[in-house]
Amino acid sequence: MSNEELMRRYITGDRFVAEAGIEILEVTPEKAVVGAKIEDRHLNANNCVQGGMLFTVADFAFAVLENALHPITVTQMGTISYITAARTDYVTATAYERVRSGHNCVCEVIVKDAGGRTVCVCQFNGFIKEEKPEAQK
Amino acid sequence: MSNEELMRRYITGDRFVAEAGIEILEVTPEKAVVGAKIEDRHLNANNCVQGGMLFTVADFAFAVLENALHPITVTQMGTISYITAARTDYVTATAYERVRSGHNCVCEVIVKDAGGRTVCVCQFNGFIKEEKPEAQK
Amino acid sequence: MSNEELMRRYITGDRFVAEAGIEILEVTPEKAVVGAKIEDRHLNANNCVQGGMLFTVADFAFAVLENALHPITVTQMGTISYITAARTDYVTATAYERVRSGHNCVCEVIVKDAGGRTVCVCQFNGFIKEEKPEAQK
Amino acid sequence: MSNEELMRRYITGDRFVAEAGIEILEVTPEKAVVGAKIEDRHLNANNCVQGGMLFTVADFAFAVLENALHPITVTQMGTISYITAARTDYVTATAYERVRSGHNCVCEVIVKDAGGRTVCVCQFNGFIKEEKPEAQK
Repeated sequence: MSNEELMRRYITGDRFVAEAGIEILEVTPEKAVVGAKIEDRHLNANNCVQGGMLFTVADFAFAVLENALHPITVTQMGTISYITAARTDYVTATAYERVRSGHNCVCEVIVKDAGGRTVCVCQFNGFIKEEKPEAQK
Repeated sequence: MSNEELMRRYITGDRFVAEAGIEILEVTPEKAVVGAKIEDRHLNANNCVQGGMLFTVADFAFAVLENALHPITVTQMGTISYITAARTDYVTATAYERVRSGHNCVCEVIVKDAGGRTVCVCQFNGFIKEEKPEAQK
Repeated sequence: MSNEELMRRYITGDRFVAEAGIEILEVTPEKAVVGAKIEDRHLNANNCVQGGMLFTVADFAFAVLENALHPITVTQMGTISYITAARTDYVTATAYERVRSGHNCVCEVIVKDAGGRTVCVCQFNGFIKEEKPEAQK
Repeated sequence: MSNEELMRRYITGDRFVAEAGIEILEVTPEKAVVGAKIEDRHLNANNCVQGGMLFTVADFAFAVLENALHPITVTQMGTISYITAARTDYVTATAYERVRSGHNCVCEVIVKDAGGRTVCVCQFNGFIKEEKPEAQK
């Protein structure tokens, strides 16, 4: 499956992501970038982007990258550190794979607002179901 | 503010949670329980409850408990471990405060499906903005 | 292998733990408690118990509990939140298993000083190599 | 205080690190690298480098970098993912700061063996006590 097909499958297949308005911006072997326009429906009681929305954006960047690199990767764990509130109405999440070894992969995901401020830093651990003989990164 | 008023404020004030259909089921000094009916719009490309939705349910249980115990608590970090897929169309998240010391609190949140299976285990760290002189738990 | 034999194997087999002076205090199906007398050699540049020492105590409580419950469990991930400095010369770590499902287990570990103050809260994820047919906890 | 003085203070001041045989290899504004020769006393019951030892090496790389960049940073949280066992008798940990915003910083630390295999991936959150007016990274 090409990257473009992958994108299409994700956009149409993941209904929670689609409903949240998250879109794929870029996929390369080095990173995946996704973004979302922030609307009133994404805010919490303090009028900031809700933590679950920020996690969803980050998790989707991870999922896009991992499934582009080695299809059928399931998320085992995610951690999210909230750094500062987003001050713009668009946020992006960029996923980088930091290690891939056997069935395991670890990605770092950085969420930024349109002003370049880092909003969250995340780490995701994935389990790669179909391991192919590959050198460790 | 009474617990009931708190619930109402959260339900109406947090638009992302409201749109996701998450509801408060129980708040006591020991725990907060929230739940959500799972619909097609909450599913990912594999027809499982999307990871961001599960995180949002857990994060909301944490937020409800912390704001009931000590208002104005902001989330600093969250971790989520995915254990198994939810096999029912309703999930609950129960938050327990494990430690409260000075400005810091740590909660554990367990997400279960209606069959009692543990779907995720989470841990959240909060920063309590208005510290009152309280003994450490 | 009995619990007592397990303890002996761990005390003699894990040289890093033995050198750090960590001892097993209690093992039941519900929890494992380990402890360590804090000496000058366990301190950091600020004269507090070094973070790696606290992690080691917590990790060992997890390892003891998991190996008592289902032998051959390997640690996949650990998280540690530092709450306050230990103010006594003895610390304990108590591990509780929060979920066990298939090959996965998640434990919470609380580290306290002798005054009952919570020093750290940890979460460990283990992979159980030899799965036996067991109901999920 | 110069980097060299910092190194000397850490080596002599942190007794747990000194006893574990961990040494500072490199400190620049971009990264800190520390290393340790693995001996029998660092092994667990399975003859692998003990998890607490690996965490201590990673935590020290974080501490060295953070204290070089902005003195008096305390660790709030650490997470460690174990990827594969170290197969050589020397390990290094390299810390990179991923975000610095106000009082908060987040570092990623990669632990490798001498063969270049990634053994662990870690993330540390620090609280910077003495904030100076600095642009966010």
